[in-house]
Amino acid sequence: MEKLDPYLNETTQNYIDSIPESRLKKAVAYALGGSGKRLRPKLMLSLIESHGMDSKPFLKAALALELVHTYSLVHDDLPAMDDDDLRRGQPTTHIQFDEATAILVGDALLSDAFKLISDTNALDAQTKVQMVHILSEKIGSRGMVYGQILDIASEGQAVTSDDLMKINLHKTSHLLEASILFGAITSKRAPLHAYESLARNLGLLYQIQDDLLEVEGNEATTGKSFSDERRGKPTFITLLGLEKTKALNAAYEKAIQESLVTLHLKGTPFAQLISTILYRTH
Amino acid sequence: MEKLDPYLNETTQNYIDSIPESRLKKAVAYALGGSGKRLRPKLMLSLIESHGMDSKPFLKAALALELVHTYSLVHDDLPAMDDDDLRRGQPTTHIQFDEATAILVGDALLSDAFKLISDTNALDAQTKVQMVHILSEKIGSRGMVYGQILDIASEGQAVTSDDLMKINLHKTSHLLEASILFGAITSKRAPLHAYESLARNLGLLYQIQDDLLEVEGNEATTGKSFSDERRGKPTFITLLGLEKTKALNAAYEKAIQESLVTLHLKGTPFAQLISTILYRTH
Repeated sequence: MEKLDPYLNETTQNYIDSIPESRLKKAVAYALGGSGKRLRPKLMLSLIESHGMDSKPFLKAALALELVHTYSLVHDDLPAMDDDDLRRGQPTTHIQFDEATAILVGDALLSDAFKLISDTNALDAQTKVQMVHILSEKIGSRGMVYGQILDIASEGQAVTSDDLMKINLHKTSHLLEASILFGAITSKRAPLHAYESLARNLGLLYQIQDDLLEVEGNEATTGKSFSDERRGKPTFITLLGLEKTKALNAAYEKAIQESLVTLHLKGTPFAQLISTILYRTH
Repeated sequence: MEKLDPYLNETTQNYIDSIPESRLKKAVAYALGGSGKRLRPKLMLSLIESHGMDSKPFLKAALALELVHTYSLVHDDLPAMDDDDLRRGQPTTHIQFDEATAILVGDALLSDAFKLISDTNALDAQTKVQMVHILSEKIGSRGMVYGQILDIASEGQAVTSDDLMKINLHKTSHLLEASILFGAITSKRAPLHAYESLARNLGLLYQIQDDLLEVEGNEATTGKSFSDERRGKPTFITLLGLEKTKALNAAYEKAIQESLVTLHLKGTPFAQLISTILYRTH
């Protein structure tokens, strides 16, 4: 899906150009830059292409997903939240600028995401409303933000693997669900719950993978040097052990592969993109 | 417009009930409670009633405006922003709860506002899209958030009354414009720019009034004890003097009254609501 990059770059630049000259504009450009994979827009766009349609008329709606993802990272990194100084090897937005600017960058990206949906001329009004409905439900007080409050509440508490699953479902899966549903409704595919289920499993697998990759990355299997554990956050490996975590990962992978078969997506650009996640090494 | 209060209370409660039990739900309920005038929903709803329509089918979209206003207050009060401990005599959300929760409350309210628009069954898809477009434009990186960054950037700088007007236009007028435009498009009225102009003037007048009321409230005309000035923020009175500020206020009042005549709104519930603003004493 690298061929989408020039189009996404252009759509991103057009968006940045629409912001009046200001510290806000510079900080939004900074937050959207860097080495992000832009997985969410690509999930939407590659699904549209896998259904035989040109995805380019829908780039603005796809960029909305990246804006929401970036807003969530910028706010999560704030000192009052995860207090992270680095993101993908670069200073986080509140370090590079300041806290007030970072809060406003998140607020602007979140507001502007809905504008990009409403500005996607190739979508009919009914589909735009459906996207607004899906996105706001998946990221609001019943979605991603709820996941974040659960995550904060879990710190220093006794957490089960079910709790961790619930946090990941809201923090990660829900925005992936919105991304894949955006692709499905743009290309008028059904049943939506099948796409939603695939996305949900993908989000849960992603978090389990993170835990597994951290073990391999650290060349340590004791769990002692996980950065999340250093912050007092349990992982699937500390809760379930390495073997059960690997088995869980394999179960989600199997479910995702089966969904790709059921939805007749094997061999499509969408399936290729999913593969890059299933077999990622970092 | 007090007769709208029970309906707005019920719609607000239904919204809060939709949030899963959590610290987030408690904090959202706290932020939306208190003694707010709910001016923005009432501007929309009273305009609909002034056009002879029942406003109750549109309560959810109206509540969206209050959610956005409340999100902006909760984020503006944060330590990294205006650092306010009290709002309407009550502890601000980050004081009553904590900073992380306050950030998330704002994020949830902003996301959920768009959900409420998409959930307003009495609106057709085209009108919902128009509302999403208007709201996101008025509050995002070209609207309210841009006003907030201008406000922060102005601190400790030499500011003119034109600069102050520009800040107020973005920070205050734009959301009032969205509120009145919501009422106009729901009742299919045109020309929208006339409603927008009325709202713009109302927002600018509101800020000038704030400065004037603070003088009267403090029984001081020297400008020495304004709380905004204590924080290094200039006001119209410190920039223009009391007489010119009063003249400016009168000019906006005249323009608003003329708009009400042009739009055939004299004597309507909407005009009555506008009067309560024009002649407010606190």
